Amino acid sequence: MLCGGVGAARFLSGLLQVVEAADVTAVVNTADDVVLHGLHISPDLDTVTYTLAGATDAERGWGLAGETWQAMEGIRRYGGIDWFNLGDRDLATHMYRTQRLSEGATLATITREITRAWGLGLVVLPVTEDRLRTMVTVVDEGEIGFQEYFVGRQHSVEVTGVRFDGAADATAGPGVLDALHEADVVVIAPSNPIVSIGPLLAVPGVRDAVVAARSRTVAVSPIVGGAALKGPADRMLRELGHESSVVGVARLYAPLAATLIIDEADAGSAEAVEAEGIRCVATSTIMSEPGVAAALARTALSEGAR
Amino acid sequence: MLCGGVGAARFLSGLLQVVEAADVTAVVNTADDVVLHGLHISPDLDTVTYTLAGATDAERGWGLAGETWQAMEGIRRYGGIDWFNLGDRDLATHMYRTQRLSEGATLATITREITRAWGLGLVVLPVTEDRLRTMVTVVDEGEIGFQEYFVGRQHSVEVTGVRFDGAADATAGPGVLDALHEADVVVIAPSNPIVSIGPLLAVPGVRDAVVAARSRTVAVSPIVGGAALKGPADRMLRELGHESSVVGVARLYAPLAATLIIDEADAGSAEAVEAEGIRCVATSTIMSEPGVAAALARTALSEGAR
Repeated sequence: MLCGGVGAARFLSGLLQVVEAADVTAVVNTADDVVLHGLHISPDLDTVTYTLAGATDAERGWGLAGETWQAMEGIRRYGGIDWFNLGDRDLATHMYRTQRLSEGATLATITREITRAWGLGLVVLPVTEDRLRTMVTVVDEGEIGFQEYFVGRQHSVEVTGVRFDGAADATAGPGVLDALHEADVVVIAPSNPIVSIGPLLAVPGVRDAVVAARSRTVAVSPIVGGAALKGPADRMLRELGHESSVVGVARLYAPLAATLIIDEADAGSAEAVEAEGIRCVATSTIMSEPGVAAALARTALSEGAR
Repeated sequence: MLCGGVGAARFLSGLLQVVEAADVTAVVNTADDVVLHGLHISPDLDTVTYTLAGATDAERGWGLAGETWQAMEGIRRYGGIDWFNLGDRDLATHMYRTQRLSEGATLATITREITRAWGLGLVVLPVTEDRLRTMVTVVDEGEIGFQEYFVGRQHSVEVTGVRFDGAADATAGPGVLDALHEADVVVIAPSNPIVSIGPLLAVPGVRDAVVAARSRTVAVSPIVGGAALKGPADRMLRELGHESSVVGVARLYAPLAATLIIDEADAGSAEAVEAEGIRCVATSTIMSEPGVAAALARTALSEGAR
């Protein structure tokens, strides 16, 4: 499974209800990683880990349950960088990752250590161990880092360009291409096609591996009724000249996936999706409860194995 | 004032009761700094700051009041480095310092920002902005970093050598030599002579500046009745061939200070101290309450101004 953050994590939760964890490999975006306060922060890896561990704060919708904010309060006292909230419990993950990186451990190794410490049985792979950074060009400001756009500006500014810095020189992480070659089914998660799935495909070898697996690949649309369930995917698609609809998503994914799963709310667009050269399946995709995620995962698996 | 950690901080608390904060400059040891989890930790600077801000946990005797340990608990979950306890509130200081260093700010600038955020009016100067690290050779293990000795082994292993890595190439921090040249009185704090005051004197120019100010310099013995009030100064003095007594301290400081203040418990050794070529004053030095620290500071000032 090609994964961004929240949407991917929810889908994975469903998937783990219907297949053995040992049979699942999540290839996760690292292009929204950021170094702040000297700490290496990998938001998508952590969202996947915390969600699958059942450790997230359900009410807040992000971060860890039982979180406290003593360190952030101290940062504010100093007038430090406070636009990226880091909870005290969450800090442990970034501190551990940073320490292990400084000892020479690879991000893949560290990710395995972290996911095992949370009791997860699936394989979680950073898409690359090389530096890969989504840079966003926004109106009036020029190019800024992804987290500065996403968190710092709360993705409320107009985007005129996206670039994956370091992609050309990046190598797919250990196990990533093998996982794509050997998978019975490849799933493209309902994540932002531009800034969550885009960076994965920009790592040399990944797009080719997905294209080679096209007949076994199923994408899940993150756009429902023209809008993103979460985040700026809809606006970003429009601002970058795509259509913010399942048809727009179909155009992006048709070269990569044999099937696009859309929400039943968009069932009327099924024909238009198929006209883009991708099989279309309409079902419930809004994973507000575990049962929906499990059913969606089951659908994706059966479509990918057709 | 030449400062290590706790003893220096307590003396400074007393000093600030008897002189204007703006007239006090603390030159603080940075050789027990350590980078852990990617964070630049300056224990002596922080001990001085937190103590003078009245923010320390009186019962525990170190660290911040109201501290929590969520990050450390997470580090333990991961099997990470947990021998150096870092509270959630305390982490803010290390995170801020690390971020500012990464932005190119100097340690002196950052220290000024931190002390001002805590409302302190004195000048706190890192002895150097260069990398200076106390390395301790211990029996059976060889050379280890100071914090690995002090915290990791709880200073319970025998020391056969101490070295200040980086000292030869270090430059005194901005304002340090000027402060020593211009001070009406120079105080050598009741800190460990080997590993707290030693590194300050190892920075080129500092020892010479103290020697030049010898007639105005007053040292306070950290050894009372042959023992250190806190930490391993007594054992370390013996293990490295010195005498763990006020006479041993007198031998170390006679070239640097005109006066040594010893505790009244050691008043019987006053003559032996003066035989080492340093004037001796016996008074209460155990700063268990603010009144004692203030009186001690007053004594030091009047002796230094004689």
